Amino acid sequence: VPKIGVVLSGCGVYDGSEIHEAVSVLLALDQLGAECQCMAPDADQLHVVNHFTGEQAPGEQRQVLAEAARIARGKIVALSTVRISDYDGFVFPGGFGAAKNLCTFALDGVECSVNADVKRLIEVANDAGKPLCFCCISPVIAAKVLGHRGEPLLTIGNDAETAAALEKMNAAHEQATVLEAVVDRDNKVVSTPAYMYGEASISEIYAGIRQAVDETLRLIG
Amino acid sequence: VPKIGVVLSGCGVYDGSEIHEAVSVLLALDQLGAECQCMAPDADQLHVVNHFTGEQAPGEQRQVLAEAARIARGKIVALSTVRISDYDGFVFPGGFGAAKNLCTFALDGVECSVNADVKRLIEVANDAGKPLCFCCISPVIAAKVLGHRGEPLLTIGNDAETAAALEKMNAAHEQATVLEAVVDRDNKVVSTPAYMYGEASISEIYAGIRQAVDETLRLIG
Repeated sequence: VPKIGVVLSGCGVYDGSEIHEAVSVLLALDQLGAECQCMAPDADQLHVVNHFTGEQAPGEQRQVLAEAARIARGKIVALSTVRISDYDGFVFPGGFGAAKNLCTFALDGVECSVNADVKRLIEVANDAGKPLCFCCISPVIAAKVLGHRGEPLLTIGNDAETAAALEKMNAAHEQATVLEAVVDRDNKVVSTPAYMYGEASISEIYAGIRQAVDETLRLIG
Repeated sequence: VPKIGVVLSGCGVYDGSEIHEAVSVLLALDQLGAECQCMAPDADQLHVVNHFTGEQAPGEQRQVLAEAARIARGKIVALSTVRISDYDGFVFPGGFGAAKNLCTFALDGVECSVNADVKRLIEVANDAGKPLCFCCISPVIAAKVLGHRGEPLLTIGNDAETAAALEKMNAAHEQATVLEAVVDRDNKVVSTPAYMYGEASISEIYAGIRQAVDETLRLIG
């Protein structure tokens, strides 16, 4: 049974992991026969957004690991304690948390930095030939970490601005629909747009993510 | 296209809506061709639980509607503003929030009280012959509100203590597996155990909830 790490960034689209995407990843992995383990950085969130008003909640602070634990029903480990050799691959759901808490892309664009544990995980897994899967906005992390190693092929759907950012970070971009996954077999990197199409339906999100998860499991050597 | 209200109670199994269940409800409704609208009480949560440690977070306070909005990607309305005649039925995901924020069952057992807007919604929908679907622990709310009206048939899985509480509140209990839904055609009430089986897999949760949602849609007159 393949063992897959699911890297979360909080709980909620505007300041953490996008919940429909994260649950679709967990559901698809289970349906396709993989075992999975949720993990997240033990760090403060960039900020807290009230998801009813859409406004930043002034003075509130939350912790990425404790909020991500909501999606994991408490079954989660700190990214800093993860032994990468225990896993066969990793999946990154999207949500602004991927661009706010796992890296600083939401603030710094192509000049972003990546959380040290996230960077280590991607580098070591890629060195070891383990597949990595990135949903929604999270391909920006793949581009930043792996861009200098070759030219990973990634998709963020059809958003021209983010596609241009990926290319500036030395990735190649391929357009895809919400139902499609783009597979870079040489670099063992899979990506799918998910809620980069903000008006997509939840069943489309699930279908695209299931496709990406399936392709990721097929890349396990 | 049937329009279904999904009644949320926060975001996270220990103090709000169980996230896998809530997303399974939204996914199944969309896959089966229903339109859905999330809704939640505009009220404070009973408390906040740190889902990494499992401990109550002292001094923290969160708001049911704002947290539930995380699951709804911001597309949510306050329960007090809902016009029940606009809907064809309602689904209640589980999670401790159903027993802490929608009613006081977690504190008061069979002597619990039910949030006034939740009570109104269930009574008016039931009067109008609209189907109601309850997942996991949320059938306790159905028993409390509808128990005196007849004897609704509900399932809570195989938990003897909660089944006895349902019966004390004048409901009938039928055992069911995580994959099954119990349908009370006379009262138009559907229930499914979901994470009342705490060790069930996420794909079993989804399968049972999809079954319950399907039965609910079939009850629309």
